[in-house]
Amino acid sequence: MRRLLGIDLGGTAAKLGVCDERGRAIDSVTIPTPARPDPEATAADIAAAARRLRGFSRCVACGLGAPGPLDSARRMVLVTPNLGWSRVPLPLLMRRALGMPVSLENDANCAAVAEWAAGAGRRARSVALYTLGTGVGGGLVLDGKLWIGSRGGAAEFGHIRIEPRGRRCGCGQRGCLETLASASAVARGARAPDAEAAFARARNGDARAARAIARAAAALGIAIAGLYNTLQPERIVLAGGMAAGPGFVETVRHAARKSVFRIYAKHVKVVRGTLGLHAGWIGAAFVAASRMRTVDRRS
Amino acid sequence: MRRLLGIDLGGTAAKLGVCDERGRAIDSVTIPTPARPDPEATAADIAAAARRLRGFSRCVACGLGAPGPLDSARRMVLVTPNLGWSRVPLPLLMRRALGMPVSLENDANCAAVAEWAAGAGRRARSVALYTLGTGVGGGLVLDGKLWIGSRGGAAEFGHIRIEPRGRRCGCGQRGCLETLASASAVARGARAPDAEAAFARARNGDARAARAIARAAAALGIAIAGLYNTLQPERIVLAGGMAAGPGFVETVRHAARKSVFRIYAKHVKVVRGTLGLHAGWIGAAFVAASRMRTVDRRS
Repeated sequence: MRRLLGIDLGGTAAKLGVCDERGRAIDSVTIPTPARPDPEATAADIAAAARRLRGFSRCVACGLGAPGPLDSARRMVLVTPNLGWSRVPLPLLMRRALGMPVSLENDANCAAVAEWAAGAGRRARSVALYTLGTGVGGGLVLDGKLWIGSRGGAAEFGHIRIEPRGRRCGCGQRGCLETLASASAVARGARAPDAEAAFARARNGDARAARAIARAAAALGIAIAGLYNTLQPERIVLAGGMAAGPGFVETVRHAARKSVFRIYAKHVKVVRGTLGLHAGWIGAAFVAASRMRTVDRRS
Repeated sequence: MRRLLGIDLGGTAAKLGVCDERGRAIDSVTIPTPARPDPEATAADIAAAARRLRGFSRCVACGLGAPGPLDSARRMVLVTPNLGWSRVPLPLLMRRALGMPVSLENDANCAAVAEWAAGAGRRARSVALYTLGTGVGGGLVLDGKLWIGSRGGAAEFGHIRIEPRGRRCGCGQRGCLETLASASAVARGARAPDAEAAFARARNGDARAARAIARAAAALGIAIAGLYNTLQPERIVLAGGMAAGPGFVETVRHAARKSVFRIYAKHVKVVRGTLGLHAGWIGAAFVAASRMRTVDRRS
Protein backbone atom coordinates (compact mmCIF):
# COMPACT_ATOMS: atom_id res chain seq x y z
CA MET A 1 0.00 0.00 0.00
CA ARG A 2 1.16 3.45 -0.92
CA ARG A 3 1.81 5.93 1.83
CA LEU A 4 1.93 9.70 1.87
CA LEU A 5 4.15 12.02 3.87
CA GLY A 6 2.75 15.26 5.21
CA ILE A 7 4.57 18.15 6.84
CA ASP A 8 2.94 21.08 8.61
CA LEU A 9 5.57 23.76 8.97
CA GLY A 10 4.83 26.23 11.77
CA GLY A 11 6.72 29.19 13.10
CA THR A 12 8.35 27.30 15.97
CA ALA A 13 7.70 23.62 15.20
CA ALA A 14 6.99 21.26 12.33
CA LYS A 15 4.47 18.47 12.67
CA LEU A 16 4.97 15.63 10.25
CA GLY A 17 3.47 12.23 9.67
CA VAL A 18 2.77 9.33 7.39
CA CYS A 19 -0.78 8.42 6.37
CA ASP A 20 -2.52 6.09 3.97
CA GLU A 21 -4.37 7.25 0.89
CA ARG A 22 -7.56 7.74 2.86
CA GLY A 23 -5.85 10.10 5.28
CA ARG A 24 -5.57 7.69 8.18
CA ALA A 25 -2.54 8.54 10.32
CA ILE A 26 0.10 5.80 10.66
CA ASP A 27 2.83 7.68 12.51
CA SER A 28 3.59 11.29 13.35
CA VAL A 29 6.04 13.46 15.27
CA THR A 30 6.58 17.11 16.16
CA ILE A 31 10.04 18.66 15.96
CA PRO A 32 11.19 22.16 16.82
CA THR A 33 12.14 24.46 13.95
CA PRO A 34 14.34 27.12 15.51
CA ALA A 35 14.66 30.29 13.46
CA ARG A 36 17.81 30.00 11.43
CA PRO A 37 19.04 31.83 8.41
CA ASP A 38 19.66 28.67 6.42
CA PRO A 39 16.46 27.01 5.12
CA GLU A 40 18.50 24.05 3.83
CA ALA A 41 19.50 23.13 7.38
CA THR A 42 15.85 23.22 8.46
CA ALA A 43 14.93 21.07 5.45
CA ALA A 44 17.61 18.56 6.43
CA ASP A 45 16.32 18.42 10.03
CA ILE A 46 12.78 17.76 8.85
CA ALA A 47 13.93 15.12 6.36
CA ALA A 48 15.88 13.30 9.08
CA ALA A 49 12.80 13.22 11.30
CA ALA A 50 10.66 12.03 8.37
CA ARG A 51 12.97 9.09 7.69
CA ARG A 52 12.38 7.83 11.22
CA LEU A 53 8.58 7.69 10.77
CA ARG A 54 6.91 4.31 10.41
CA GLY A 55 5.88 3.79 6.78
CA PHE A 56 8.28 6.37 5.39
CA SER A 57 9.85 3.90 2.98
CA ARG A 58 6.50 3.38 1.26
CA CYS A 59 5.84 7.11 0.84
CA VAL A 60 5.37 8.10 -2.78
CA ALA A 61 4.87 11.83 -2.33
CA CYS A 62 5.26 14.54 0.26
CA GLY A 63 2.94 17.44 0.92
CA LEU A 64 4.17 20.52 2.67
CA GLY A 65 1.93 23.01 4.43
CA ALA A 66 3.35 26.43 5.19
CA PRO A 67 1.90 29.58 6.72
CA GLY A 68 1.42 32.81 4.84
CA PRO A 69 1.10 33.57 1.18
CA LEU A 70 2.64 31.29 -1.45
CA ASP A 71 3.39 32.14 -5.03
CA SER A 72 0.64 31.06 -7.39
CA ALA A 73 2.74 28.22 -8.84
CA ARG A 74 3.18 26.83 -5.30
CA ARG A 75 6.97 26.76 -5.68
CA MET A 76 7.85 29.48 -3.19
CA VAL A 77 7.04 30.50 0.35
CA LEU A 78 6.78 34.27 -0.02
CA VAL A 79 7.05 35.31 3.63
CA THR A 80 7.43 33.30 6.82
CA PRO A 81 8.19 35.98 9.39
CA ASN A 82 8.65 33.59 12.31
CA LEU A 83 11.26 31.55 10.46
CA GLY A 84 12.95 34.68 9.18
CA TRP A 85 12.67 33.62 5.52
CA SER A 86 11.24 35.12 2.42
CA ARG A 87 10.94 33.75 -1.14
CA VAL A 88 12.28 30.33 -0.16
CA PRO A 89 11.82 27.52 -2.75
CA LEU A 90 10.83 25.09 -0.04
CA PRO A 91 9.49 22.26 -2.26
CA LEU A 92 12.79 22.19 -4.11
CA LEU A 93 14.81 21.99 -0.88
CA MET A 94 12.58 19.28 0.55
CA ARG A 95 12.62 17.33 -2.71
CA ARG A 96 16.40 17.25 -2.54
CA ALA A 97 16.40 16.26 1.11
CA LEU A 98 13.72 13.56 0.77
CA GLY A 99 14.12 12.15 -2.73
CA MET A 100 10.42 12.25 -3.59
CA PRO A 101 8.06 14.72 -5.27
CA VAL A 102 7.05 17.51 -2.91
CA SER A 103 4.06 19.80 -3.27
CA LEU A 104 3.45 22.98 -1.33
CA GLU A 105 0.20 24.46 -0.09
CA ASN A 106 -0.94 27.04 2.45
CA ASP A 107 -1.37 25.44 5.88
CA ALA A 108 -5.00 26.47 6.44
CA ASN A 109 -5.88 25.23 2.95
CA CYS A 110 -4.30 21.90 3.93
CA ALA A 111 -6.38 21.76 7.11
CA ALA A 112 -9.55 22.34 5.05
CA VAL A 113 -8.64 19.50 2.69
CA ALA A 114 -7.95 17.20 5.65
CA GLU A 115 -11.23 17.93 7.42
CA TRP A 116 -13.08 17.49 4.12
CA ALA A 117 -11.30 14.22 3.30
CA ALA A 118 -11.04 12.58 6.67
CA GLY A 119 -12.57 14.79 9.38
CA ALA A 120 -15.59 16.91 10.22
CA GLY A 121 -16.33 17.64 6.56
CA ARG A 122 -16.49 14.06 5.38
CA ARG A 123 -19.26 13.32 2.90
CA ALA A 124 -19.76 17.06 2.24
CA ARG A 125 -19.12 18.35 -1.27
CA SER A 126 -18.08 21.79 -0.07
CA VAL A 127 -16.34 22.77 3.15
CA ALA A 128 -15.09 26.07 4.52
CA LEU A 129 -12.63 25.98 7.41
CA TYR A 130 -11.57 28.71 9.83
CA THR A 131 -8.39 28.24 11.84
CA LEU A 132 -8.54 30.25 15.04
CA GLY A 133 -5.00 30.66 16.33
CA THR A 134 -2.50 33.48 16.59
CA GLY A 135 -4.22 34.70 13.47
CA VAL A 136 -7.31 33.55 11.62
CA GLY A 137 -6.71 31.48 8.50
CA GLY A 138 -9.09 29.81 6.11
CA GLY A 139 -9.48 27.12 3.53
CA LEU A 140 -12.15 26.25 0.97
CA VAL A 141 -13.00 22.96 -0.66
CA LEU A 142 -15.62 23.48 -3.38
CA ASP A 143 -17.19 20.58 -5.21
CA GLY A 144 -14.51 18.27 -3.86
CA LYS A 145 -11.56 20.43 -4.90
CA LEU A 146 -9.34 22.86 -3.04
CA TRP A 147 -10.18 26.38 -4.25
CA ILE A 148 -7.12 28.63 -4.29
CA GLY A 149 -8.45 31.42 -6.51
CA SER A 150 -6.97 33.16 -9.52
CA ARG A 151 -3.87 34.30 -7.63
CA GLY A 152 -3.52 31.35 -5.31
CA GLY A 153 -4.49 33.34 -2.22
CA ALA A 154 -8.19 32.62 -1.73
CA ALA A 155 -9.79 31.90 1.66
CA GLU A 156 -8.00 34.64 3.57
CA PHE A 157 -10.93 34.65 5.97
CA GLY A 158 -8.96 36.40 8.70
CA HIS A 159 -8.87 39.58 6.66
CA ILE A 160 -12.56 39.92 5.94
CA ARG A 161 -13.44 43.29 7.48
CA ILE A 162 -16.13 43.04 10.13
CA GLU A 163 -15.87 46.47 11.75
CA PRO A 164 -14.76 48.96 9.08
CA ARG A 165 -13.73 51.44 11.78
CA GLY A 166 -12.32 48.81 14.12
CA ARG A 167 -8.87 47.98 15.47
CA ARG A 168 -5.84 48.05 13.18
CA CYS A 169 -4.85 44.59 11.90
CA GLY A 170 -1.35 43.34 11.13
CA CYS A 171 -2.33 43.38 7.44
CA GLY A 172 -2.77 47.15 7.50
CA GLN A 173 -6.59 47.20 7.42
CA ARG A 174 -9.00 47.96 10.23
CA GLY A 175 -11.51 45.66 11.89
CA CYS A 176 -10.47 42.41 10.20
CA LEU A 177 -11.97 39.21 11.61
CA GLU A 178 -8.49 38.37 12.91
CA THR A 179 -8.51 41.42 15.22
CA LEU A 180 -11.71 40.14 16.85
CA ALA A 181 -11.79 36.35 16.67
CA SER A 182 -8.23 35.03 16.79
CA ALA A 183 -7.05 33.28 19.93
CA SER A 184 -4.70 36.22 20.45
CA ALA A 185 -7.57 38.73 20.19
CA VAL A 186 -9.57 36.81 22.79
CA ALA A 187 -6.57 36.58 25.15
CA ARG A 188 -5.89 40.29 24.71
CA GLY A 189 -9.53 41.23 25.26
CA ALA A 190 -9.69 39.05 28.37
CA ARG A 191 -6.29 40.28 29.61
CA ALA A 192 -5.39 36.59 29.89
CA PRO A 193 -2.14 34.84 28.90
CA ASP A 194 -3.94 32.82 26.21
CA ALA A 195 -7.38 31.89 24.91
CA GLU A 196 -7.57 28.79 27.08
CA ALA A 197 -7.09 30.93 30.18
CA ALA A 198 -9.72 33.35 28.87
CA PHE A 199 -12.23 30.51 28.59
CA ALA A 200 -11.34 29.31 32.10
CA ARG A 201 -11.83 32.82 33.52
CA ALA A 202 -15.15 33.26 31.73
CA ARG A 203 -16.32 29.97 33.22
CA ASN A 204 -15.40 31.31 36.66
CA GLY A 205 -17.52 34.43 36.15
CA ASP A 206 -14.97 36.91 34.79
CA ALA A 207 -17.15 39.36 32.84
CA ARG A 208 -14.27 40.80 30.82
CA ALA A 209 -13.24 37.35 29.58
CA ALA A 210 -16.85 36.46 28.79
CA ARG A 211 -17.18 39.68 26.78
CA ALA A 212 -14.04 38.98 24.75
CA ILE A 213 -15.31 35.50 23.90
CA ALA A 214 -18.79 36.76 23.05
CA ARG A 215 -17.28 39.41 20.80
CA ALA A 216 -15.19 36.81 18.98
CA ALA A 217 -18.22 34.56 18.50
CA ALA A 218 -20.35 37.46 17.22
CA ALA A 219 -17.66 38.52 14.73
CA LEU A 220 -17.27 34.95 13.51
CA GLY A 221 -21.04 34.68 13.19
CA ILE A 222 -21.15 37.71 10.89
CA ALA A 223 -18.18 36.45 8.86
CA ILE A 224 -19.67 32.97 8.48
CA ALA A 225 -23.06 34.39 7.52
CA GLY A 226 -21.36 36.43 4.80
CA LEU A 227 -19.52 33.35 3.60
CA TYR A 228 -22.73 31.35 3.64
CA ASN A 229 -24.64 34.02 1.72
CA THR A 230 -21.80 33.93 -0.81
CA LEU A 231 -21.10 30.21 -1.22
CA GLN A 232 -23.50 28.09 0.83
CA PRO A 233 -20.86 25.51 1.71
CA GLU A 234 -22.36 22.30 3.01
CA ARG A 235 -20.26 22.44 6.16
CA ILE A 236 -18.27 25.09 8.02
CA VAL A 237 -15.50 23.80 10.26
CA LEU A 238 -13.85 25.70 13.12
CA ALA A 239 -10.33 24.53 13.93
CA GLY A 240 -7.71 25.50 16.48
CA GLY A 241 -7.76 25.53 20.26
CA MET A 242 -10.51 28.18 20.45
CA ALA A 243 -12.96 25.83 18.71
CA ALA A 244 -12.71 23.52 21.72
CA GLY A 245 -13.80 26.27 24.13
CA PRO A 246 -16.95 25.12 25.95
CA GLY A 247 -20.04 26.16 23.99
CA PHE A 248 -18.01 28.26 21.57
CA VAL A 249 -18.98 26.44 18.36
CA GLU A 250 -22.64 26.49 19.41
CA THR A 251 -22.53 30.25 20.09
CA VAL A 252 -20.89 30.91 16.73
CA ARG A 253 -23.43 28.71 14.94
CA HIS A 254 -26.28 30.60 16.59
CA ALA A 255 -24.75 33.97 15.65
CA ALA A 256 -24.20 32.85 12.04
CA ARG A 257 -27.78 31.64 11.71
CA LYS A 258 -29.05 34.97 13.01
CA SER A 259 -27.11 36.90 10.34
CA VAL A 260 -27.64 34.69 7.32
CA PHE A 261 -30.34 35.17 4.67
CA ARG A 262 -33.27 33.96 6.71
CA ILE A 263 -34.76 31.10 4.68
CA TYR A 264 -31.41 29.29 4.77
CA ALA A 265 -30.69 29.78 8.49
CA LYS A 266 -31.41 26.23 9.56
CA HIS A 267 -29.07 24.84 6.90
CA VAL A 268 -25.98 26.62 8.23
CA LYS A 269 -23.85 23.82 9.69
CA VAL A 270 -20.99 25.04 11.86
CA VAL A 271 -19.00 22.22 13.47
CA ARG A 272 -15.71 21.69 15.28
CA GLY A 273 -12.82 20.10 13.39
CA THR A 274 -12.13 16.52 14.42
CA LEU A 275 -8.50 16.17 13.35
CA GLY A 276 -7.05 18.70 15.79
CA LEU A 277 -3.35 19.36 15.34
CA HIS A 278 -3.11 16.58 12.76
CA ALA A 279 -5.23 18.39 10.16
CA GLY A 280 -2.31 20.32 8.68
CA TRP A 281 0.02 17.46 7.83
CA ILE A 282 -2.76 15.07 6.79
CA GLY A 283 -4.17 17.71 4.47
CA ALA A 284 -0.73 18.45 3.04
CA ALA A 285 -0.33 14.73 2.32
CA PHE A 286 -3.70 14.68 0.58
CA VAL A 287 -2.84 17.71 -1.52
CA ALA A 288 0.37 15.93 -2.55
CA ALA A 289 -1.60 12.87 -3.63
CA SER A 290 -4.05 14.95 -5.67
CA ARG A 291 -1.20 16.73 -7.44
CA MET A 292 0.98 13.68 -8.11
CA ARG A 293 0.39 13.87 -11.83
CA THR A 294 1.00 17.57 -12.08
CA VAL A 295 3.79 17.88 -9.54
CA ASP A 296 7.08 19.08 -10.97
CA ARG A 297 9.32 16.06 -10.59
CA ARG A 298 12.30 17.98 -11.81
CA SER A 299 12.10 20.40 -8.91
CA MET B 1 -27.83 26.28 -36.44
CA ARG B 2 -29.43 25.73 -33.07
CA ARG B 3 -30.93 28.70 -31.28
CA LEU B 4 -31.73 29.30 -27.63
CA LEU B 5 -34.59 31.21 -26.09
CA GLY B 6 -34.01 33.27 -22.96
CA ILE B 7 -36.56 34.99 -20.75
CA ASP B 8 -35.75 37.45 -17.97
CA LEU B 9 -38.83 37.78 -15.82
CA GLY B 10 -38.97 41.00 -13.84
CA GLY B 11 -41.55 42.44 -11.50
CA THR B 12 -43.22 44.64 -14.11
CA ALA B 13 -41.81 43.41 -17.43
CA ALA B 14 -40.27 40.38 -19.11
CA LYS B 15 -37.36 40.72 -21.49
CA LEU B 16 -36.99 37.82 -23.88
CA GLY B 17 -34.82 37.00 -26.84
CA VAL B 18 -33.29 34.45 -29.13
CA CYS B 19 -29.53 33.96 -29.28
CA ASP B 20 -27.07 31.57 -30.85
CA GLU B 21 -25.02 29.08 -28.88
CA ARG B 22 -22.30 31.65 -28.29
CA GLY B 23 -24.74 34.05 -26.69
CA ARG B 24 -25.02 36.45 -29.62
CA ALA B 25 -28.44 38.12 -29.64
CA ILE B 26 -30.55 37.55 -32.76
CA ASP B 27 -33.79 39.17 -31.68
CA SER B 28 -35.33 40.40 -28.44
CA VAL B 29 -38.37 42.17 -27.07
CA THR B 30 -39.69 43.52 -23.78
CA ILE B 31 -43.31 42.97 -22.78
CA PRO B 32 -45.20 44.16 -19.71
CA THR B 33 -46.09 41.55 -17.09
CA PRO B 34 -48.96 43.11 -15.14
CA ALA B 35 -49.53 41.55 -11.73
CA ARG B 36 -52.26 38.99 -12.10
CA PRO B 37 -53.33 36.12 -9.96
CA ASP B 38 -53.06 33.58 -12.77
CA PRO B 39 -49.46 32.60 -13.64
CA GLU B 40 -50.71 30.53 -16.60
CA ALA B 41 -52.05 33.66 -18.28
CA THR B 42 -48.67 35.37 -17.83
CA ALA B 43 -46.93 32.27 -19.24
CA ALA B 44 -49.24 32.36 -22.27
CA ASP B 45 -48.50 36.07 -22.87
CA ILE B 46 -44.75 35.44 -22.75
CA ALA B 47 -45.02 32.40 -25.03
CA ALA B 48 -46.99 34.41 -27.59
CA ALA B 49 -44.30 37.10 -27.60
CA ALA B 50 -41.58 34.45 -27.90
CA ARG B 51 -43.19 32.91 -30.98
CA ARG B 52 -42.94 36.26 -32.74
CA LEU B 53 -39.14 36.45 -32.23
CA ARG B 54 -36.85 35.89 -35.19
CA GLY B 55 -35.23 32.45 -34.90
CA PHE B 56 -37.83 31.09 -32.49
CA SER B 57 -38.57 28.07 -34.69
CA ARG B 58 -34.96 26.91 -34.36
CA CYS B 59 -34.90 27.20 -30.56
CA VAL B 60 -34.08 23.91 -28.85
CA ALA B 61 -34.35 25.03 -25.24
CA CYS B 62 -35.59 27.90 -23.14
CA GLY B 63 -33.94 29.41 -20.08
CA LEU B 64 -35.96 31.38 -17.62
CA GLY B 65 -34.48 33.86 -15.18
CA ALA B 66 -36.59 34.89 -12.21
CA PRO B 67 -35.98 37.14 -9.21
CA GLY B 68 -35.83 35.89 -5.66
CA PRO B 69 -35.07 32.51 -4.20
CA LEU B 70 -35.79 29.33 -6.16
CA ASP B 71 -36.18 25.85 -4.80
CA SER B 72 -32.96 23.89 -4.98
CA ALA B 73 -34.25 21.66 -7.81
CA ARG B 74 -34.97 24.80 -9.88
CA ARG B 75 -38.58 23.74 -10.43
CA MET B 76 -40.32 26.43 -8.40
CA VAL B 77 -40.24 30.17 -7.92
CA LEU B 78 -40.60 30.46 -4.17
CA VAL B 79 -41.58 34.13 -3.85
CA THR B 80 -42.05 36.85 -6.48
CA PRO B 81 -43.68 39.62 -4.46
CA ASN B 82 -44.13 41.99 -7.40
CA LEU B 83 -46.00 39.42 -9.43
CA GLY B 84 -48.02 38.35 -6.44
CA TRP B 85 -47.03 34.69 -6.74
CA SER B 86 -45.45 32.16 -4.49
CA ARG B 87 -44.38 28.55 -5.10
CA VAL B 88 -45.20 28.73 -8.81
CA PRO B 89 -43.88 25.85 -10.99
CA LEU B 90 -42.88 28.29 -13.70
CA PRO B 91 -40.72 25.92 -15.82
CA LEU B 92 -43.66 23.52 -16.04
CA LEU B 93 -46.05 26.29 -17.15
CA MET B 94 -43.60 27.65 -19.72
CA ARG B 95 -42.80 24.17 -21.02
CA ARG B 96 -46.49 23.63 -21.69
CA ALA B 97 -46.85 27.05 -23.32
CA LEU B 98 -43.71 26.74 -25.47
CA GLY B 99 -43.33 23.07 -26.24
CA MET B 100 -39.62 22.90 -25.45
CA PRO B 101 -37.53 22.08 -22.39
CA VAL B 102 -37.39 24.98 -19.94
CA SER B 103 -34.84 25.51 -17.20
CA LEU B 104 -35.11 28.01 -14.37
CA GLU B 105 -32.40 30.02 -12.67
CA ASN B 106 -32.12 33.09 -10.45
CA ASP B 107 -31.94 36.25 -12.58
CA ALA B 108 -28.67 37.59 -11.13
CA ASN B 109 -27.07 34.16 -11.57
CA CYS B 110 -28.16 34.32 -15.22
CA ALA B 111 -26.58 37.76 -15.62
CA ALA B 112 -23.30 36.42 -14.19
CA VAL B 113 -23.32 33.52 -16.66
CA ALA B 114 -24.01 35.91 -19.54
CA GLU B 115 -21.22 38.34 -18.65
CA TRP B 116 -18.87 35.38 -18.21
CA ALA B 117 -19.86 33.75 -21.49
CA ALA B 118 -20.34 36.74 -23.76
CA GLY B 119 -19.65 39.97 -21.89
CA ALA B 120 -17.24 41.67 -19.50
CA GLY B 121 -16.09 38.36 -18.02
CA ARG B 122 -15.11 36.69 -21.25
CA ARG B 123 -11.91 34.65 -21.12
CA ALA B 124 -12.00 34.68 -17.29
CA ARG B 125 -12.33 31.36 -15.48
CA SER B 126 -14.14 32.87 -12.53
CA VAL B 127 -16.48 35.85 -12.41
CA ALA B 128 -18.50 37.47 -9.65
CA LEU B 129 -21.30 39.82 -10.63
CA TYR B 130 -23.18 42.40 -8.57
CA THR B 131 -26.50 43.71 -9.89
CA LEU B 132 -27.20 47.16 -8.48
CA GLY B 133 -30.89 47.85 -8.85
CA THR B 134 -33.87 48.10 -6.52
CA GLY B 135 -31.95 45.55 -4.52
CA VAL B 136 -28.45 44.13 -4.82
CA GLY B 137 -28.20 40.68 -6.37
CA GLY B 138 -25.24 38.53 -7.20
CA GLY B 139 -23.99 35.66 -9.28
CA LEU B 140 -20.86 33.52 -9.26
CA VAL B 141 -19.19 31.57 -12.03
CA LEU B 142 -16.35 29.47 -10.62
CA ASP B 143 -14.02 27.53 -12.87
CA GLY B 144 -16.41 27.99 -15.77
CA LYS B 145 -19.50 26.80 -13.93
CA LEU B 146 -22.38 28.60 -12.24
CA TRP B 147 -22.03 28.12 -8.48
CA ILE B 148 -25.39 27.88 -6.75
CA GLY B 149 -24.27 26.40 -3.43
CA SER B 150 -25.55 23.46 -1.42
CA ARG B 151 -29.07 24.93 -1.11
CA GLY B 152 -29.23 26.67 -4.45
CA GLY B 153 -29.10 30.15 -2.93
CA ALA B 154 -25.43 31.18 -3.16
CA ALA B 155 -24.26 34.64 -4.24
CA GLU B 156 -26.79 36.60 -2.19
CA PHE B 157 -24.29 39.46 -2.20
CA GLY B 158 -26.93 42.03 -1.28
CA HIS B 159 -27.28 40.51 2.16
CA ILE B 160 -23.65 40.54 3.18
CA ARG B 161 -23.62 42.71 6.30
CA ILE B 162 -21.35 45.73 5.99
CA GLU B 163 -22.47 47.76 8.99
CA PRO B 164 -23.58 45.35 11.73
CA ARG B 165 -25.42 48.17 13.49
CA GLY B 166 -26.68 49.82 10.30
CA ARG B 167 -30.10 50.38 8.74
CA ARG B 168 -32.70 47.62 8.77
CA CYS B 169 -32.84 45.67 5.49
CA GLY B 170 -35.93 44.12 3.88
CA CYS B 171 -34.44 40.72 4.74
CA GLY B 172 -34.68 41.44 8.47
CA GLN B 173 -30.96 42.02 9.09
CA ARG B 174 -29.17 45.30 9.70
CA GLY B 175 -26.56 47.02 7.53
CA CYS B 176 -26.75 44.69 4.52
CA LEU B 177 -24.94 45.83 1.38
CA GLU B 178 -28.36 46.34 -0.19
CA THR B 179 -29.23 49.06 2.34
CA LEU B 180 -26.14 51.01 1.29
CA ALA B 181 -25.36 50.28 -2.34
CA SER B 182 -28.60 49.55 -4.21
CA ALA B 183 -29.90 52.15 -6.64
CA SER B 184 -32.80 52.68 -4.23
CA ALA B 185 -30.42 53.31 -1.33
CA VAL B 186 -28.52 55.91 -3.35
CA ALA B 187 -31.73 57.62 -4.46
CA ARG B 188 -33.02 57.64 -0.88
CA GLY B 189 -29.73 58.97 0.49
CA ALA B 190 -29.63 61.67 -2.17
CA ARG B 191 -33.34 62.46 -1.72
CA ALA B 192 -33.59 62.02 -5.49
CA PRO B 193 -36.31 60.21 -7.48
CA ASP B 194 -33.80 57.61 -8.70
CA ALA B 195 -30.08 56.81 -8.84
CA GLU B 196 -29.67 58.48 -12.22
CA ALA B 197 -30.99 61.74 -10.78
CA ALA B 198 -28.67 61.30 -7.80
CA PHE B 199 -25.66 61.05 -10.12
CA ALA B 200 -26.86 64.12 -12.07
CA ARG B 201 -27.22 66.12 -8.84
CA ALA B 202 -23.81 65.04 -7.58
CA ARG B 203 -22.29 66.17 -10.87
CA ASN B 204 -23.95 69.55 -10.32
CA GLY B 205 -22.37 69.93 -6.89
CA ASP B 206 -25.10 68.52 -4.61
CA ALA B 207 -23.12 67.40 -1.56
CA ARG B 208 -25.87 65.14 -0.23
CA ALA B 209 -26.06 63.21 -3.49
CA ALA B 210 -22.28 62.95 -3.69
CA ARG B 211 -22.23 61.55 -0.13
CA ALA B 212 -24.86 58.92 -0.92
CA ILE B 213 -22.87 57.79 -3.96
CA ALA B 214 -19.58 57.77 -2.05
CA ARG B 215 -21.18 55.72 0.70
CA ALA B 216 -22.47 53.18 -1.81
CA ALA B 217 -19.06 52.92 -3.45
CA ALA B 218 -17.32 52.50 -0.08
CA ALA B 219 -19.73 49.75 0.99
CA LEU B 220 -19.30 47.95 -2.31
CA GLY B 221 -15.54 48.27 -1.96
CA ILE B 222 -15.63 46.52 1.41
CA ALA B 223 -17.99 43.83 0.12
CA ILE B 224 -15.88 43.19 -2.96
CA ALA B 225 -12.68 43.08 -0.90
CA GLY B 226 -14.29 40.46 1.32
CA LEU B 227 -15.34 38.48 -1.74
CA TYR B 228 -11.87 38.79 -3.21
CA ASN B 229 -10.21 37.67 0.02
CA THR B 230 -12.58 34.69 -0.03
CA LEU B 231 -12.53 33.59 -3.67
CA GLN B 232 -10.13 35.68 -5.75
CA PRO B 233 -12.36 35.69 -8.80
CA GLU B 234 -10.54 36.71 -11.94
CA ARG B 235 -13.06 39.41 -12.71
CA ILE B 236 -15.75 41.29 -10.76
CA VAL B 237 -18.54 42.76 -12.84
CA LEU B 238 -20.91 45.54 -11.77
CA ALA B 239 -24.26 45.52 -13.57
CA GLY B 240 -27.37 47.68 -13.48
CA GLY B 241 -27.88 51.38 -14.12
CA MET B 242 -25.69 52.46 -11.17
CA ALA B 243 -22.65 50.85 -12.78
CA ALA B 244 -22.93 53.38 -15.60
CA GLY B 245 -22.71 56.33 -13.19
CA PRO B 246 -19.72 58.49 -14.16
CA GLY B 247 -16.62 57.29 -12.35
CA PHE B 248 -18.59 54.89 -10.17
CA VAL B 249 -16.86 51.67 -11.22
CA GLU B 250 -13.46 53.35 -10.80
CA THR B 251 -14.35 54.57 -7.29
CA VAL B 252 -15.55 51.11 -6.29
CA ARG B 253 -12.41 49.48 -7.72
CA HIS B 254 -10.23 51.87 -5.75
CA ALA B 255 -12.17 51.21 -2.54
CA ALA B 256 -11.97 47.44 -3.06
CA ARG B 257 -8.22 47.57 -3.63
CA LYS B 258 -7.78 49.56 -0.45
CA SER B 259 -9.61 46.93 1.61
CA VAL B 260 -8.24 43.75 0.11
CA PHE B 261 -5.32 41.71 1.46
CA ARG B 262 -2.56 44.04 0.34
CA ILE B 263 -0.30 41.90 -1.84
CA TYR B 264 -3.25 41.11 -4.11
CA ALA B 265 -4.59 44.66 -4.43
CA LYS B 266 -3.41 45.28 -7.96
CA HIS B 267 -5.04 42.07 -9.17
CA VAL B 268 -8.56 43.09 -8.15
CA LYS B 269 -10.35 43.69 -11.46
CA VAL B 270 -13.66 45.48 -11.10
CA VAL B 271 -15.34 46.26 -14.42
CA ARG B 272 -18.70 47.35 -15.75
CA GLY B 273 -20.95 44.76 -17.41
CA THR B 274 -21.14 45.07 -21.17
CA LEU B 275 -24.45 43.33 -21.88
CA GLY B 276 -26.67 45.83 -20.07
CA LEU B 277 -30.33 44.85 -19.94
CA HIS B 278 -29.68 41.85 -22.18
CA ALA B 279 -27.55 39.99 -19.63
CA GLY B 280 -30.52 38.33 -17.92
CA TRP B 281 -32.15 36.64 -20.91
CA ILE B 282 -28.85 35.77 -22.60
CA GLY B 283 -27.61 34.16 -19.40
CA ALA B 284 -30.88 32.28 -18.95
CA ALA B 285 -30.51 30.92 -22.49
CA PHE B 286 -26.94 29.84 -21.70
CA VAL B 287 -28.02 28.10 -18.51
CA ALA B 288 -30.67 26.25 -20.53
CA ALA B 289 -28.04 25.08 -23.01
CA SER B 290 -25.74 23.86 -20.25
CA ARG B 291 -28.58 21.92 -18.63
CA MET B 292 -30.02 20.39 -21.77
CA ARG B 293 -29.00 16.90 -20.81
CA THR B 294 -30.21 17.17 -17.26
CA VAL B 295 -33.34 19.21 -17.83
CA ASP B 296 -36.52 17.43 -16.84
CA ARG B 297 -38.25 16.88 -20.15
CA ARG B 298 -41.31 15.46 -18.45
CA SER B 299 -41.98 18.74 -16.69
